[in-house]
Amino acid sequence: MRGKGALVALLASPSASYTAQQPRPRARRRPTRLEATTLDAKAVKGAPLDIGVEEPARSIDVYATLPPVDIRLLDEQEHDDLPGRTHVINLAKGPPCPDPFALVKSELIPFSDNMKLLVASENPILSQAASHFFEKRHGKRFRPTIVMLLAQALPNAHKDSSEVVFERQTRLGQVTEMIHVASLIHDDVLDDADTRRGGDAIHKMYSNKVAVLSGDYLLARASVLLAKLGHMDVVQVMARALDSLVSGEIMQIKANGAADKKSSEDKNEISEPMNGKRSFLDRAKAALNVGRSQEALQRELAERDAREMELYLRKSYYKTASLICDASRSCALLAGHASDSEVAAAAEEYGYHLGLAFQIVDDVLDFAMDDDQLGKPAGADLSLGLATAPILFAAQDHPELRPLIERRFKGDGDVTMAYETVRASTGMDLARKLAGFHAQRAVDAICRVAPDSEARDALISICYIVLSRNK
Amino acid sequence: MRGKGALVALLASPSASYTAQQPRPRARRRPTRLEATTLDAKAVKGAPLDIGVEEPARSIDVYATLPPVDIRLLDEQEHDDLPGRTHVINLAKGPPCPDPFALVKSELIPFSDNMKLLVASENPILSQAASHFFEKRHGKRFRPTIVMLLAQALPNAHKDSSEVVFERQTRLGQVTEMIHVASLIHDDVLDDADTRRGGDAIHKMYSNKVAVLSGDYLLARASVLLAKLGHMDVVQVMARALDSLVSGEIMQIKANGAADKKSSEDKNEISEPMNGKRSFLDRAKAALNVGRSQEALQRELAERDAREMELYLRKSYYKTASLICDASRSCALLAGHASDSEVAAAAEEYGYHLGLAFQIVDDVLDFAMDDDQLGKPAGADLSLGLATAPILFAAQDHPELRPLIERRFKGDGDVTMAYETVRASTGMDLARKLAGFHAQRAVDAICRVAPDSEARDALISICYIVLSRNK
Repeated sequence: MRGKGALVALLASPSASYTAQQPRPRARRRPTRLEATTLDAKAVKGAPLDIGVEEPARSIDVYATLPPVDIRLLDEQEHDDLPGRTHVINLAKGPPCPDPFALVKSELIPFSDNMKLLVASENPILSQAASHFFEKRHGKRFRPTIVMLLAQALPNAHKDSSEVVFERQTRLGQVTEMIHVASLIHDDVLDDADTRRGGDAIHKMYSNKVAVLSGDYLLARASVLLAKLGHMDVVQVMARALDSLVSGEIMQIKANGAADKKSSEDKNEISEPMNGKRSFLDRAKAALNVGRSQEALQRELAERDAREMELYLRKSYYKTASLICDASRSCALLAGHASDSEVAAAAEEYGYHLGLAFQIVDDVLDFAMDDDQLGKPAGADLSLGLATAPILFAAQDHPELRPLIERRFKGDGDVTMAYETVRASTGMDLARKLAGFHAQRAVDAICRVAPDSEARDALISICYIVLSRNK
Repeated sequence: MRGKGALVALLASPSASYTAQQPRPRARRRPTRLEATTLDAKAVKGAPLDIGVEEPARSIDVYATLPPVDIRLLDEQEHDDLPGRTHVINLAKGPPCPDPFALVKSELIPFSDNMKLLVASENPILSQAASHFFEKRHGKRFRPTIVMLLAQALPNAHKDSSEVVFERQTRLGQVTEMIHVASLIHDDVLDDADTRRGGDAIHKMYSNKVAVLSGDYLLARASVLLAKLGHMDVVQVMARALDSLVSGEIMQIKANGAADKKSSEDKNEISEPMNGKRSFLDRAKAALNVGRSQEALQRELAERDAREMELYLRKSYYKTASLICDASRSCALLAGHASDSEVAAAAEEYGYHLGLAFQIVDDVLDFAMDDDQLGKPAGADLSLGLATAPILFAAQDHPELRPLIERRFKGDGDVTMAYETVRASTGMDLARKLAGFHAQRAVDAICRVAPDSEARDALISICYIVLSRNK
């Protein structure tokens, strides 16, 4: 199910149309093929327009975003007889490789030194600001770890020696982290976020001036290093990643802006679709509740649920998955695999699903953690007006959450009410299940093209770590 | 005179060492070759460190920044017998082509439409902000005009048809303008500038959030479009241009930061070099004025003058000339000329000198104009702590300006005093003369490789316009 028909398919799927008032649909057992759902690019108007030159389809328009059955009925272990499925994630059993990060530790030590040098500049304030993330609070180094592990796991198809190729892939890992950090720094300016990664956000520690400039500096350095890799397709893929990060941020402020407008215009009319323009007749009908059967209302609610989930998944792709999946694809390209090769596609698919799983778990943790553990305030996403997977799933059982979602938690007490409701619901469990769906697909993708190796086990184990992390 | 010895040469040159107390050196007449002065990259520590991969020399380390003789004694028309000089700028006579902008007007109309589409996004606020510069206040469209004229003037050496090549060069012009506008938008956040191009700065009209995001958005779109040109060398050159813009901004806040520190630490000790660390003995000597002959003091002042001029020219290159000269070089590369070709070098040289001339005249106009005419407050650069060509030349005759320059005009009444002193000095005339030096070199460069044509005349005329503009 791809392209134009996807939204219809999504709306018709049991997961999307399920509400508390309806009987649960029966599970489809052991399908011969997993027909997963993708988003319709034209249905979601968040991405900027492109003209003049053709762009390849974004991964989110190619790969699955939701399982083909209601997430409540999904049991990945049922599908272990699927062709090509060589490893089924079993969190109880544990990952095949206990510490995947250890495998590339030696690669990341010079990486760290290099990064310090790369951000070194003669301006002490800027240098301090830019190296802040890399040194004192360098985070998980999640992205360069994935790139380095892929570099080891994927076969080298390049005419140049493995050493030369690996050197380029290392550089790609650095570029990826620089882009990631630059986007964090600029997002902090954008979001007025108070804390990030457990430390003060750069713009609070220094100033907006230094934050904007530090981000620009990292982006500029990343562009230069990327260009020097000398691989045109890689430049193009990574440029798209940068574009995606900005698109994600645009979607975010757009959703917020729309809610601002909405909540001031017609705060009490929550039964209409967001942003929908209505004629006088429509308004009159709505006021009199004429011609609206219970069934029609349910369908409308289901449509809105589906639209919110679409927006959420697309934003998650743009803001998180795109950089990981574009870096993964680039890593395969640097190893000499063609743009249309199975290896490049599988690497991209691995990064795509892993990235979505990562973001979904991140959003679950926003409800799970207190301030100390996560490094940012619990429920912070709600305060930013973000409706993430846990609350969207929770709303299916708790329709009272819908108006709060629609006004982006801007009403008095909305954040607390939403937080408590989600905590008491199955929303977090269902979101984790969706993350599991994506993690399994990431495993499937990498096993399709990488021969059995320690590095492949490490890439599989990363999926375990993403799913089971609780901080 | 290139490379390491350049600073020494610069210091020894009559222009740099001239002060009011010394007799003016005699002019060197009709040199057989113009030995112009370039900066020593290692002497000026403003640019960020680069490691790991070799970068080509920046244009500022290759081409002349200052004439080989005291600017006061320079008479370009003396040198019209120089080999390769086919056109000598004569402002009294006027440009060979009365309206160079008219020549590419038809190319810039679809350009404008394209730009509107390129910045179109579904977010109305962002879209409004990003298209703000392109539509309502689109400025001079100076950069795309130069790229389009070069596209017409340079011979096509590409195997593809002229139409296909021209289409790519048009795209390059758009990318160049997008990078330029993005840097303006981000600089506005950085500088807290109140006005730009006669309108409110974006971050005042909207918010820092929208300003950072609009700039990022344009940069990301520019990266994608640039990558799609599919020319690795062009990507690399334009990445360096982006890097230069950020480096220029870093130098700017660095100079300001150093002055802040300096002025709070030892406000009254103006005879020591900036940032110089001094031992107790040095301090004692300075206090007692022991061991400092008049000659040594003069030499020290001359050294400081030279250093300030170096900083100024390097910053002007990074912030203005680099984008123009890198875009010009890229335009030649897209026409199929090799990286090491004479055409690519000459195009770069044209853009380099034109860019410096443009910036120097811009800095003169900061002293010449009142608020209404320029679109930003007169003397705005002084308020930002910037010591530009007019004041650096003025200081050679008015040593009382030196302490003000050193503390970046942060003392009470400094801005007004500096402004009035420059207005009453020959600083603006001398700066215009330096601009003339660069404009003539731009003309020399383009005449070296472009056959006689209307477009070449237009490129020459652009130099006239840059020199004679008074707003």
